[in-house]
Amino acid sequence: MSEVILKATAAKDAANVLNRLTTAQKNEALILVADALLDQEARILAANEEDLARGKESGTSPSLLDRLKLTPARLKDISDAVRLIVELPDPVGELLDTYHRPNGLFIEKRSVPLGVIGIIYEARPNVTVDAATLCLKSGNSVVLRGGSAALASNRAIIAVMREALSRSSVPADALQLIEDSDRGSVDEMLKLNGLLDVIIPRGGASLIQNVVKNATVPVIETGEGVCHTYIDASGEYAMAESISVNAKAQRPSVCNSMETLIVHQAFARAHLVSLAEKFREVHVELRGCDVTRDLVSWAKPASDADYATEYSDYILNVKVVNDLEEALGHIQRFGTKHSECIVTEDAANADRFMQEVDAAAVYHNASTRFTDGFEFGFGAEIGISTQKLHARGPMGLPALTSTKYRVVGTGQIRT
Amino acid sequence: MSEVILKATAAKDAANVLNRLTTAQKNEALILVADALLDQEARILAANEEDLARGKESGTSPSLLDRLKLTPARLKDISDAVRLIVELPDPVGELLDTYHRPNGLFIEKRSVPLGVIGIIYEARPNVTVDAATLCLKSGNSVVLRGGSAALASNRAIIAVMREALSRSSVPADALQLIEDSDRGSVDEMLKLNGLLDVIIPRGGASLIQNVVKNATVPVIETGEGVCHTYIDASGEYAMAESISVNAKAQRPSVCNSMETLIVHQAFARAHLVSLAEKFREVHVELRGCDVTRDLVSWAKPASDADYATEYSDYILNVKVVNDLEEALGHIQRFGTKHSECIVTEDAANADRFMQEVDAAAVYHNASTRFTDGFEFGFGAEIGISTQKLHARGPMGLPALTSTKYRVVGTGQIRT
Repeated sequence: MSEVILKATAAKDAANVLNRLTTAQKNEALILVADALLDQEARILAANEEDLARGKESGTSPSLLDRLKLTPARLKDISDAVRLIVELPDPVGELLDTYHRPNGLFIEKRSVPLGVIGIIYEARPNVTVDAATLCLKSGNSVVLRGGSAALASNRAIIAVMREALSRSSVPADALQLIEDSDRGSVDEMLKLNGLLDVIIPRGGASLIQNVVKNATVPVIETGEGVCHTYIDASGEYAMAESISVNAKAQRPSVCNSMETLIVHQAFARAHLVSLAEKFREVHVELRGCDVTRDLVSWAKPASDADYATEYSDYILNVKVVNDLEEALGHIQRFGTKHSECIVTEDAANADRFMQEVDAAAVYHNASTRFTDGFEFGFGAEIGISTQKLHARGPMGLPALTSTKYRVVGTGQIRT
Repeated sequence: MSEVILKATAAKDAANVLNRLTTAQKNEALILVADALLDQEARILAANEEDLARGKESGTSPSLLDRLKLTPARLKDISDAVRLIVELPDPVGELLDTYHRPNGLFIEKRSVPLGVIGIIYEARPNVTVDAATLCLKSGNSVVLRGGSAALASNRAIIAVMREALSRSSVPADALQLIEDSDRGSVDEMLKLNGLLDVIIPRGGASLIQNVVKNATVPVIETGEGVCHTYIDASGEYAMAESISVNAKAQRPSVCNSMETLIVHQAFARAHLVSLAEKFREVHVELRGCDVTRDLVSWAKPASDADYATEYSDYILNVKVVNDLEEALGHIQRFGTKHSECIVTEDAANADRFMQEVDAAAVYHNASTRFTDGFEFGFGAEIGISTQKLHARGPMGLPALTSTKYRVVGTGQIRT
């Protein structure tokens, strides 16, 4: 049997135990994990050094190496994040609904763990701990398949966590790392119906699209965000500047940052030159429509391909429109249904935008950068769903549960 | 452009209109549809005659022909079912959660339509109306791809419904029928990411597995049920007989009927001979384990393949077990996570069964035949989900919605 099948089978058996544990038992295990990550700091950092050395040899970019790197401070943050998960309410066992039927049946709908969750992700070793502990807290086993660049780090982290679990009520087998870094192990996970209940991909667009296109196991799609900010005719200049600069430049690499600024022609005539200057000050390259380029001579031309691109960088498309209708059409054509914002003082236009734009999160007078589990107050985030089934937008612990109907009778039969 | 792309594109455009309609506007359209189905009875029945004649010529079985057949009485039932959907609460726009964040952001989570729903189904023309009107009520456009055996009936029904919609606020294009009966049109729908938001297959196991295995569009899996009834040592004989005979024989063709009866050895010694006699009286063939066959000489032997089969027929496996543990193991190995029942007077055993069995619905002292949207009080059913994501068990109108976060600020930016 392959590594993937062996480990997924062990994870499934463990899920049947985990499913019956109390909140206290799960929390005790998580605290042991948080402690062990600090106690075993030297072991984890030594393994991380191996990955870093291998990465330098193979010419990995400094920014990727930085994402891979663990330090005592970063390990402390990772351990602290586990302690925060301990504090969160247990999403399992929640009474979601009850029905008394005329025939006397009593029906309860309760949240239950999903079962076994597969996570396919890239190089950051903090995801290993974060994803694993969110799964365990919600009563799920987890099969992790991280990038090969972090393999030594992930091996050490998982060994430390499994040792900690072996001193708790949570079976160590609830936590599995696929070490085979061949692409075949990903392909195998994608078709593992019956052993994996769901796969959550975390990483770049190509990783996510490979999972979405090839998986027969149900997938929660996360990730791509071509987000827009539309400044309406009545938008206040100071607010529009502050929100749009924040949405683009505060952290361009993340999915909730803005890729295209849409500006009503009246606002553009009055303010686009000043606003463009603000973007230039923070080193954002502008690519504009013809009207934009008439007003802002240094802007490059924007193509349809540009409007469809998630730059994740200091590049911004600017499109001047005649009215709200045209703005809505642009978002419908190029948006990825992630996060969209209108800056306006006109309540009717705000309402129409919020109602008609099809996206996980729509904003009136606030930056799209808030689409995030922590900013939404969930206390944790397993990812941001860009699909419409099961969960949409930032996903906290409840997104890692399913439901079960419990029906209690006194001998009822169907006639 | 292909028929599928043209019609799905029109459906998507219509969804943007449908999304903004009030409950009253949608209900008015549904009432026009219900009326039109009766007014145009002759036209629909004539088309149905074509399908029936073609079916007879090609040697379709009498039971399939009966499922295909429409009569004035059946058409009246179909029209009445639409009127019942009118009476149900609108699942769209429900306030699911609100958050006030410390930074002043006000966040609302509301239910929204999924968008465009693809339904791939088999020959029964009542599904055409039922699925379409549930989608419209929940603000979704629908692209239907029915079986070729019912093509003339479906064409007539959809033409009548679209004519009715054209006199309402709901765009006729919200309702699309794919008429190309080539298998290629199904394959095309399965990969139509961006135009279809979800596909719901309705039909036999091979149809559903084809959709689950090949779709890149998100799927809600419905259907297969290898359901068990476990009679514990303390089960009351009269109740056990009544529930198990009902679960098997009241309507064997449906997914919530029982395929395997599991019996505690103490109950078996006392009662299995009498119980088997009851099954013989209603013409149920028994296939048993060795202990069963020692007690019931006329039972045939049951193989592992039998235990894994959804017979949908008057055939029942019988397995005698030593204890609850062994019963749970059998269900975990062979169950399809649909509906599972324990008959017992022992509260602790009932609790353990209800907690540990991983299924959409678990029953204590009631027939598994109750797993059904109408029996659960939902007033309608689009199918019974056998997956864990999005919806599990009987799906009413809320299963046809997604969510949207609406965030209102006063200029907040992220720091």
